Amino acid sequence: MQAVGVVAEYNPFHNGHRYHLQQARAVTGADVVIAVMSGNFVQRGEAAIFNKWQRASEALHNGADLVVELPFHWAVQPAHLFAQGALSLLSAMQVSTLVFGAEHEQTDFAALAHATVNDSQAFKTFNETYATLFNAQLESQTGFRLDQPNDILGYGYAVANAKLSSPLKLMPVARVGSEYHDDQMNPRGYSSATAIRQTVLGHQRGVNVAANVPAETFADIRHLTPLKGWSPKMWALLRHTLLMMPMASLHQIYQMSEGLDCRLKEAAETQSHWDDFLAAIKTKRYTYSRLQRVCLYALVHALDNEMTPGQTDYLRLLGFTSAGQQYLNAHKKTFGLPVVTRFDQNLKKTTLNLDYRAGMLYEMLTGQSQDFRHDPIRIGTK
Amino acid sequence: MQAVGVVAEYNPFHNGHRYHLQQARAVTGADVVIAVMSGNFVQRGEAAIFNKWQRASEALHNGADLVVELPFHWAVQPAHLFAQGALSLLSAMQVSTLVFGAEHEQTDFAALAHATVNDSQAFKTFNETYATLFNAQLESQTGFRLDQPNDILGYGYAVANAKLSSPLKLMPVARVGSEYHDDQMNPRGYSSATAIRQTVLGHQRGVNVAANVPAETFADIRHLTPLKGWSPKMWALLRHTLLMMPMASLHQIYQMSEGLDCRLKEAAETQSHWDDFLAAIKTKRYTYSRLQRVCLYALVHALDNEMTPGQTDYLRLLGFTSAGQQYLNAHKKTFGLPVVTRFDQNLKKTTLNLDYRAGMLYEMLTGQSQDFRHDPIRIGTK
Repeated sequence: MQAVGVVAEYNPFHNGHRYHLQQARAVTGADVVIAVMSGNFVQRGEAAIFNKWQRASEALHNGADLVVELPFHWAVQPAHLFAQGALSLLSAMQVSTLVFGAEHEQTDFAALAHATVNDSQAFKTFNETYATLFNAQLESQTGFRLDQPNDILGYGYAVANAKLSSPLKLMPVARVGSEYHDDQMNPRGYSSATAIRQTVLGHQRGVNVAANVPAETFADIRHLTPLKGWSPKMWALLRHTLLMMPMASLHQIYQMSEGLDCRLKEAAETQSHWDDFLAAIKTKRYTYSRLQRVCLYALVHALDNEMTPGQTDYLRLLGFTSAGQQYLNAHKKTFGLPVVTRFDQNLKKTTLNLDYRAGMLYEMLTGQSQDFRHDPIRIGTK
Repeated sequence: MQAVGVVAEYNPFHNGHRYHLQQARAVTGADVVIAVMSGNFVQRGEAAIFNKWQRASEALHNGADLVVELPFHWAVQPAHLFAQGALSLLSAMQVSTLVFGAEHEQTDFAALAHATVNDSQAFKTFNETYATLFNAQLESQTGFRLDQPNDILGYGYAVANAKLSSPLKLMPVARVGSEYHDDQMNPRGYSSATAIRQTVLGHQRGVNVAANVPAETFADIRHLTPLKGWSPKMWALLRHTLLMMPMASLHQIYQMSEGLDCRLKEAAETQSHWDDFLAAIKTKRYTYSRLQRVCLYALVHALDNEMTPGQTDYLRLLGFTSAGQQYLNAHKKTFGLPVVTRFDQNLKKTTLNLDYRAGMLYEMLTGQSQDFRHDPIRIGTK
C-alpha cells in the first residue's frame, strides 16, 4: 500500500483542509492519506480551539485515513523544527510523498533547500530570532523571497527532508481560497482557520461559518465550547507560575534565556490581563509566536532535555479509518518508531510525560479528559 | 508608655475580638494595645476572608492601637511556631504583657511550659504529627489535658515566652461566648469567626451577622466579596502547580516530605475538586490543617530556608491610631527588629520576598492590590 502524508494543525478543520486531503490522494494516487497533526497546543504557542480528538475526528471524516499526533516537543516549535518533527514521523511510517500547500507552489523547494543546506554559516543563524537576516541571505543566494507562512513551512519540510536517509517526494500544491493570515470570512467557502476561529470565538458574531467547514466541524462548533488560544484561565495559571517560580527554576525552562525570565516576571507583577502582558514583554527581538511559545513552555514546565530534538520519539495514533487500519496492519512492524495506541502510567512517567502534562493542562482548561480515557478513534473499522 | 500585646487572625474581626482588646487594656492598664495579626493567609493554611488591610482597619477601629503583620513564615505554621513568631515580634516591640484567651484561663501556662521545657525528649516530638503523643506525655507529667485550640496556643505562647531573654507577663483571660470551633451563630452576639465565615460565605444564608460584628466588619461584609479559604481559583492554581512542577522541585517545598509529594501529585491528576482532593490526600498521619498548609507552601513555592525560624525578621506596620503612633515615636529606635512602613522593590527582592509572593497570590485571587500601593492605615493621627 502506498501512503501520502500531510502535516496540519486543523485548528479547526475547514473546507480548505478537506480540499487539500482530496488533492493529496488525487495527485499521488495513494491508497491512504496520513496526517501528522499538532496535539492540544499549536505551533504558535496557543491552545487549540478544539481538543486533538475532536480535530482528528473532523479530519478522519473528511479524507484522512490515519491521524498521528505531532508530540508537543515538535509541535510547539519554530517552523523548521515543526517541519523536522513532522517529516521524521512521516518517514518512520514509510510515507512516500509529502503534499503541502504553498503560496508559491511552483517553487522548487528541494532545490531551494539544497542551495543553502551546505552553508553552515546560514544554518547557525537559522532560527526565528534571526529570521530576517536568514531570509536576506536566502534571497541573495537564490533570488527567492521567503516571507509567506506556508512557503516558510515548505522550505522547512524541504530542509528536513534533505536530511532524511530516504527522503520523501515533495509535492507543493496551491492553497485554495484565503491566505493563512486572512482574518476575513471568505464567501466562497474557503476561509482560513484564523478567520473561522475569530468568528467562532465571537469577534464577528452573526457570520455563519457553516458554509466554510464540513458538517463534523460545524457540529463541534455548535455543541462544544471553543477555547481561546490564551483564555483568562490559562493566563491566570501562567501569571501565578511566573510570580511564584524561583528565578533559578524559571531560567531552566526551555528557551527562557537572554533576560526573558526577568522580563516575564516583572510584567507578570504589573499586568493583570494577557493582552497587556504580551504587549509589555514584546520587543523587536522576539515575535509574538516566539513569546507565546515561551509562555507555554513555562506553563507546562518544559525543560531543555524534554524539548531537544533527538530524544526518543513515538507515533501516537489519534485515529484511523478502515484503510488506515489496513495500512497499520501491513506496515507497523517495520515502522521506524514505536506506535502508541493506549496511554498508560508507564508512558506517562517516561517518554510521554511532556505530552501528558500538556494534556492535563488542556483538561484543566476545558474539563475534557485527554489521555487516560481515550483509545484511537475508529471510523468504519471492523 | 506601657504596651499590652495580643495575637490574632481577625478572620474576620468580631465582637469577641473587641471584648478581648477591651479586656487587654482594662486588666493591664496599658497605654496602647498592640496586635500581631496574620497577613493574607492564616494559620490553618487558608486565605483570609478579607485582606490584611481590611482586617487591620476593623481592629484599629475597635480597640487596637497598633497592628503588625505576622510574616507568612511564622503565621502559616503549627501553633507552637505561630506562637513563637508572635512572641518574638511583641518582645521586639518592648511589650510588657501578653493577654490571650484560653478555654481554661485559670491554668498556670508558664508553670506548664516549665514543667516540660527541660524535657528535650518531649520537644523533639513537639509538632503536629506527634501532637497526640506529646499531649499524652504532658498530661502524664502535669495532669493537664491540652486539647482545646486556645489552650494549645496559650501553651505555645508560654513555651516561646520562656525562651525569651526578657519574657513577657502572661495573662490568660476567659473567652466570651462561643467556643472557637463552634460553627453555629450565637444569638448573644458572640459568635466565633468560623461561624461568621460560614454564614458570610453563604452556607447559612439569611442569618444576620450584624449583631455579632462591629460596624466596620459589617460594612466589609456588605461591600466586599468575601474570599473562601480555598476558592476554586486557588485550587486551580494549586492543581496546575502540582501537575507541572518536576518532582525534584516539588520535593524542595517546605514540609513536602515523606512521600507527600507523590501523594499530592497523584491526587491532583485524578481529582478535579478541592474537597475531593483534600479527602484523597488525608491520612491519619496528617491533620487537615497540616495538609492545607503544605498545599499553600506549594502554591507560594515556599522553600525550607524561607520558612525556617531564625531568619531575618521585621515589624511590618499595617496601621496605627494616634496612641499607636506616639508609642512608635517613643520606642521604635530601641525596637529589637527593623520597622517596615513602606514596601519597595528592595524589600521585595530580599527579606520580604515570601510575603510579597503571598501578597501577589492574594491579589490574583481578589483583584485587590496588597503591598506596593499601601501605606499603613492611620486612625486619628496627625
